[in-house]
Amino acid sequence: SEYVAPADKRRQYISGFSGSAGTAVITQDKQAVWSDGRYFLQAEDELDCNWLLMKEGEPDVPTILEWLKLELTSGMNISADSTLIGSSEWLNYIKELGDINMIEIDENLNLVDEVWGNDNVTSRPPYAEDEVFIHDVTYAGRSWEEKVDDVRAEMLAQDADLIILTALDEIAWLFNLRGNDIPYNPVFRSYVTISANESNLFISPNKVTDAVRIHLKDVNIFDYDNFLSHLDSIQANKVMIPNAYSYAGGASYAVYSRIVEEARFLVTSPVLLMKAMKNPTEIQGMRNAHIKDAVALCDFLCFMEKEIKAGNDWTEISAANKLADYRGEQDGEKGLSFTTISGFGSNGAIIHYKPTSATDKTIDTSSLYLLDSGGQYLDGTTDVTRTMHYGTPTSLMVETYTRVLMGQIDLAMAVFPDGTMDTRTDILARGPLYEIGLDYNHGTGHGIGMFLSVHEAPTQVRIYGVEDHPFRYGYFFSDGKKLYLLE
Amino acid sequence: SEYVAPADKRRQYISGFSGSAGTAVITQDKQAVWSDGRYFLQAEDELDCNWLLMKEGEPDVPTILEWLKLELTSGMNISADSTLIGSSEWLNYIKELGDINMIEIDENLNLVDEVWGNDNVTSRPPYAEDEVFIHDVTYAGRSWEEKVDDVRAEMLAQDADLIILTALDEIAWLFNLRGNDIPYNPVFRSYVTISANESNLFISPNKVTDAVRIHLKDVNIFDYDNFLSHLDSIQANKVMIPNAYSYAGGASYAVYSRIVEEARFLVTSPVLLMKAMKNPTEIQGMRNAHIKDAVALCDFLCFMEKEIKAGNDWTEISAANKLADYRGEQDGEKGLSFTTISGFGSNGAIIHYKPTSATDKTIDTSSLYLLDSGGQYLDGTTDVTRTMHYGTPTSLMVETYTRVLMGQIDLAMAVFPDGTMDTRTDILARGPLYEIGLDYNHGTGHGIGMFLSVHEAPTQVRIYGVEDHPFRYGYFFSDGKKLYLLE
Repeated sequence: SEYVAPADKRRQYISGFSGSAGTAVITQDKQAVWSDGRYFLQAEDELDCNWLLMKEGEPDVPTILEWLKLELTSGMNISADSTLIGSSEWLNYIKELGDINMIEIDENLNLVDEVWGNDNVTSRPPYAEDEVFIHDVTYAGRSWEEKVDDVRAEMLAQDADLIILTALDEIAWLFNLRGNDIPYNPVFRSYVTISANESNLFISPNKVTDAVRIHLKDVNIFDYDNFLSHLDSIQANKVMIPNAYSYAGGASYAVYSRIVEEARFLVTSPVLLMKAMKNPTEIQGMRNAHIKDAVALCDFLCFMEKEIKAGNDWTEISAANKLADYRGEQDGEKGLSFTTISGFGSNGAIIHYKPTSATDKTIDTSSLYLLDSGGQYLDGTTDVTRTMHYGTPTSLMVETYTRVLMGQIDLAMAVFPDGTMDTRTDILARGPLYEIGLDYNHGTGHGIGMFLSVHEAPTQVRIYGVEDHPFRYGYFFSDGKKLYLLE
Repeated sequence: SEYVAPADKRRQYISGFSGSAGTAVITQDKQAVWSDGRYFLQAEDELDCNWLLMKEGEPDVPTILEWLKLELTSGMNISADSTLIGSSEWLNYIKELGDINMIEIDENLNLVDEVWGNDNVTSRPPYAEDEVFIHDVTYAGRSWEEKVDDVRAEMLAQDADLIILTALDEIAWLFNLRGNDIPYNPVFRSYVTISANESNLFISPNKVTDAVRIHLKDVNIFDYDNFLSHLDSIQANKVMIPNAYSYAGGASYAVYSRIVEEARFLVTSPVLLMKAMKNPTEIQGMRNAHIKDAVALCDFLCFMEKEIKAGNDWTEISAANKLADYRGEQDGEKGLSFTTISGFGSNGAIIHYKPTSATDKTIDTSSLYLLDSGGQYLDGTTDVTRTMHYGTPTSLMVETYTRVLMGQIDLAMAVFPDGTMDTRTDILARGPLYEIGLDYNHGTGHGIGMFLSVHEAPTQVRIYGVEDHPFRYGYFFSDGKKLYLLE
């Protein structure tokens, strides 16, 4: 998952870097974190001098593989938690590392957890045990039985006996269920297998209420912890195993390696593609949610303009809390869709900035205020970025703000045929900035879930992306550029 | 080569279809031609009822491979002239056809030539034996010795002992030579091998003058016909063999299969990439050539407007000839860069239309006149498309013309960073047409040579392309949309 439960924030625990994307690699004498352009400033701030920061995509910065080849010698061993690393990544390491061995360690042993579980200062938090709840068909538009039928039709078309689902948002969407296991993401820790005659859901039994059991009819419910051993008992000729695709990490190597070699069939999950194409009920819900979210945001922006001009005291944190209150007034609101990015002045230049008590700035009339936030509603998920200046912006601020807006409108107004690749539309958004030699170091748009993940596969409007994804009718995506200026 | 000598137009001879792109496949009881959207109308016109036309990319049209699998059964044999088919295509056939065998026949036996050579009506024309000539360094900007040094540096960087060059424009560019072997393309039939100490040019000896021998200094000159057998004598550990990339077809399977398996190293030709990035002298030459070409075109357009309005008799062919005369008045003109597409009314809807005495229409004030033409000059190559109406266009013509022009200007004015992918810029050109639900069934832009091929690898501005190519500073490309309307 892109977003994980607090109990799974192992990279943050071990390195201190809290960004949503990054990988830590530890050898006997060095440790390094790789992250992307959104997090360079934040990672420099959070990592101490014991850690190397590897800025992905910058000149002369090695990839993880290149670095491992430099640091290690023939015959040395590498491992990772095979339940957490994607199968394609693991297989690539095996292929590329040659004489350096990729070894599996006990699936129940995670080396970070060994330290974290015994750390009295930062003891490892438990997993949530909140109950899952039914997402009513009046929001979902289709029953889970119809969705499972579609999955089986796709299995038949691909001549597969079984499909394994490992993406939490796919499982939530497929069964019209939601949960509270991961902050900002209404999903629950689970696995699913579907064959021609059986559907099996692996989930902590405490989370399943009687109402959910009735809702799920003949779906077999097994304990989450029994999933991997269940795979050993599978007898199938062809098993669809989700591959990494866009924001979806795909099945872990532990899942992949449990399936006998002849039966492995790595595919883009058909549920991923079905979920991305919103049905008419979901489309209407997304529109409703965005209208409600806009009301909350307008309330807030109007309030803030008066407050700041009156000289009242508001900080990044108190403003974000106020906005959350306004969102909470809306029908069907179910919390935020991600940590609010509320950044004043130089803090607005940290792309995925989250204010803390140590960094919290007072918002006044002297600089830009960047606000990137979103809400979860029973009928949709939102993600909205706005930049304000409550005083007199500089001419550079005016010019760049205008050009960001021009590009945002150009992409928003664009008409293009079904099947157009996402990477091939982004120049519309960047063009006005390119004209004056400027650019921004993050994607322009991403798919959005319907009361699900704020970053949803497959869409990524990203001119520098290496993977193309076709747009289909019914897809939703964001069109966001943060106007950030280093002071 | 994309363009070939008359002696090599085997597909045209056997099928009747004369377009610049297409493949004929013949089984014991069927024959079919595959071509792309630019040629659907022309192919329907030229192919008789004995031939199946396969419209590439249309729904339910099989690829060649899919069709072969349907038509043939296990154990049957397929062949092609291994000296003419690219190695990657041949290898793909071997991989995909399974139990159907890909067999090599004698490299000196071409089955079409067996028929054509004995056909008294359409006897096979001979290859040209025109002498090659030196392209002066005042145009080329760099000596061939400097270019060969760059190639050797790249070989060293890739740890290769030898490179084989098979693309005619790469060989012409590398040695600052030009020829007349292929209409509209100032190249000569040849092969090249370069090692750390030796450069070998394989060419018909009659084409090499004393001046060229002096120019080439210590380059070994061998007979063209000895090239394949020369490959048998090669002793090298790693041989760079050009792979198919964009408009470049790559080395033939006959070349590839002559190199011992352990030494084969398929790469994008480094000469292809060097040639695309024009040096300052070439850039200045391309600008000069375009100015001269624009003078010729303005002369012609001014002349034609008066003539047609005066009611004088001009046809597609006579107009194209008049334009060629104007181009001929310019300094350093060396003929046209492709067959002039001069199409009036419905003929303008045939994307790569070439007027013949059977189709030649009179140009008058009743419809659109499409003119797509270009010239070869010692200092550059041009490709310009213009659409005229000498009477009163319909409102649909006005709207579509305006939107084509808007897109053309948007792409022409675009600024983007070095390394931007060509496929990711095309939406700028198509956007204004997309807005009203229109599109065109061809690429928008292609790389252009410098007194070389009018279609030059790698650039293809084509939103529907499957291969991305990065733009680099110094690349030239066209920005062309044909306004064509079925009447």
